[in-house]
Amino acid sequence: MTDIQVLKGHIIYTKEKDAFEVHENSYIVIKEGTVRGIHDTLPEVYRYVPVMDYGNALIIPSFIDLHIHAPQYMQMGVGLNLGLIDWLNQYTFKNEAKFEDVAYAKKVYPRFVDALYQNGTLRSCIFATIHKESTRELVKALENKRLSAYVGKVNMNQNAPDELLETTEESIRETMGFIEAIGDSEYVKPIITPRFAPSCTSDLMHQLGQLSHDRSIPIQTHLAETKREIDWVMSLFPDSKNYSHVYKDHQLYGDQKSLMAHTIYLSEDELEMAKNDNIFLVHCPNSNLNLTSGIMPVTTCIDKGLQVGMGSDVGAGHKIGMHHTITSAIQCSKMRHVLNPEERILKESEAFYLATKMNGRFFGKVGSFEEGYLFDALIVKDPDDLIEELTPLERLQRFLYCGGPDSIIGRYLEGCSI
Amino acid sequence: MTDIQVLKGHIIYTKEKDAFEVHENSYIVIKEGTVRGIHDTLPEVYRYVPVMDYGNALIIPSFIDLHIHAPQYMQMGVGLNLGLIDWLNQYTFKNEAKFEDVAYAKKVYPRFVDALYQNGTLRSCIFATIHKESTRELVKALENKRLSAYVGKVNMNQNAPDELLETTEESIRETMGFIEAIGDSEYVKPIITPRFAPSCTSDLMHQLGQLSHDRSIPIQTHLAETKREIDWVMSLFPDSKNYSHVYKDHQLYGDQKSLMAHTIYLSEDELEMAKNDNIFLVHCPNSNLNLTSGIMPVTTCIDKGLQVGMGSDVGAGHKIGMHHTITSAIQCSKMRHVLNPEERILKESEAFYLATKMNGRFFGKVGSFEEGYLFDALIVKDPDDLIEELTPLERLQRFLYCGGPDSIIGRYLEGCSI
Repeated sequence: MTDIQVLKGHIIYTKEKDAFEVHENSYIVIKEGTVRGIHDTLPEVYRYVPVMDYGNALIIPSFIDLHIHAPQYMQMGVGLNLGLIDWLNQYTFKNEAKFEDVAYAKKVYPRFVDALYQNGTLRSCIFATIHKESTRELVKALENKRLSAYVGKVNMNQNAPDELLETTEESIRETMGFIEAIGDSEYVKPIITPRFAPSCTSDLMHQLGQLSHDRSIPIQTHLAETKREIDWVMSLFPDSKNYSHVYKDHQLYGDQKSLMAHTIYLSEDELEMAKNDNIFLVHCPNSNLNLTSGIMPVTTCIDKGLQVGMGSDVGAGHKIGMHHTITSAIQCSKMRHVLNPEERILKESEAFYLATKMNGRFFGKVGSFEEGYLFDALIVKDPDDLIEELTPLERLQRFLYCGGPDSIIGRYLEGCSI
Repeated sequence: MTDIQVLKGHIIYTKEKDAFEVHENSYIVIKEGTVRGIHDTLPEVYRYVPVMDYGNALIIPSFIDLHIHAPQYMQMGVGLNLGLIDWLNQYTFKNEAKFEDVAYAKKVYPRFVDALYQNGTLRSCIFATIHKESTRELVKALENKRLSAYVGKVNMNQNAPDELLETTEESIRETMGFIEAIGDSEYVKPIITPRFAPSCTSDLMHQLGQLSHDRSIPIQTHLAETKREIDWVMSLFPDSKNYSHVYKDHQLYGDQKSLMAHTIYLSEDELEMAKNDNIFLVHCPNSNLNLTSGIMPVTTCIDKGLQVGMGSDVGAGHKIGMHHTITSAIQCSKMRHVLNPEERILKESEAFYLATKMNGRFFGKVGSFEEGYLFDALIVKDPDDLIEELTPLERLQRFLYCGGPDSIIGRYLEGCSI
């Protein structure tokens, strides 16, 4: 029984997207960091195991963020009055260029990682910058905080400011160096990160695709965020059938686990490809609103059987907490429904499912409390001024819409309290 | 010089909607609670006046909320998975019915008022419930906290649950009693508050309109939030030309200052009426998204010369801070622009202007730092983890998008620190 833990509280998770599983005043049994079961009465066999009784608090799966830019943490909320290109040039590229100085990374990245931790995002897929040494500082910060992540040293060798351009050879060499440096990290894995098609020559993308294939390393990039971007990509890669094919033709799509962020404007063919190749379409509603990109047709994609995940996309997204991304996704879906009543509205349980179990698929068996899943969890308390008799599910709604770091009183990763 | 105050900091406000006025490291001189002037060097005449030097902090006009439901404070974020009617029946009406018990009002209203204060909303226009004595508790809580507000005892005598129905005679008698009870309050004024047309018989509305006219008391109500609502209203009041006319025909529109919340679906005729009668159209973007109502065409209305204000509409809106309403309005405007590129996007300065100077018009000369305006202000500090060299305007952007109560280190109402 020494490797058994028992927690008690109001346990809520989503096994399926259409409903919450709610276990009030129940016990969750964890063995070697993995969920063994949930019980309303603790089985006799565990009678000598001390119970971590959280009382009235909620026990929910911790959040996972499938798309976030660590170097943009310091620019959240700033410059969103500009269009995309001006925002990139006046803020984003300038910010990322600062990470050539490792000392700067040592200042910013621990703050960024702490913000992930405070907001209950215990696993994430992160874009860093082109700078290998600074990106290693991000890895260190994550390891120090004991958070799980895929981290990508970004690749860019065209269509970018000089200070953010690499040569093809540099880009590949530094990426391989970064992969070596991560080694067998307990918390962080590498992910191949071509910024997006316009940033990378065909040659670079071929080499990255080969690297991904040879080392079985996943991919993350951007896809179909705006119509202008699509037109630009097709002019740069006229031999590819569509934007998704640009990546597929370079072995950067579906050969390994692949995250495609935004995916607002995919054609029917591309949706079919994404389904066949088990691509993760990462919905970033907050960012899409802030940069006036559009709203991804999320429920349509879900109903076609596509894997739809979610991301905060900090810094175009101005909120790092995934509870904000969840409520933003619901609001965006409602807006699509007003304009097109045939499109159904994303349910609360679905939005929660995307940010937990669906996002968790990228990492393995995480994001749910079914037997065999790793116990990643948040313990959530009520606001101090709450006087209503709310049900546990209503409390969860209150947390998603109105909560924040102050609501989170416990964090578990693979059964360890962190 | 005893009635003179001088504050120093980075002073930002909007005199016009199209740009921020930014005075870095400047002095603002206040005499008897009113702005006398802003100077980059303090004039000699004030040399013996001690300066409240706020250093690097921002000094901005405090926020004003033109539409908020105090009794719904405890239900924020809860039940938003339901449509409007179910949300009303399962949550809102049940919550409001609890205020028949004055003891309940004594628990909730101070918490609500404290939340206004914490979030920097120092003036607001508030819907209470039908219950006069509980509404008086709201007035007391505002007076204790020294916040400025118009408070309305709500009127409803049809199409509502029994526990929230008044007779016409009760409704008028209690409203008059409430007005008497407010008396010459230093902080709170009454406002006539028919919930909306479906809630009130023609007879009740006539009497309320007469009361408003006789006592020169402003009006607040809801207008054109959803298309179904409009259809319902026209079936109830077939003799009126349109929904706005229902109010106008009962002297509840334009005779005194009038707040109409939502105004998403106004016809061209109604927009013309609103302009001619100086109506305040109160945009509640967050609520409109949460209840799947639609998005008000804000920039179109502004460009037609209409008075557009803003409201949090707690509890359909899940955020009480007006900085959230500001960013939500910008996001909603961007969404309209994506779908209809001819509609321009609401600028940041405009959104800020709506929540300060435009909203302030309802109260008098507040919401700006021009000479002669009352000094209502917030002192805003940077987040603790900020390491960027941000300009004062960028700091303001960061506060609007990412800030909250923790950012606000000072609050002034009419020159008094509160």
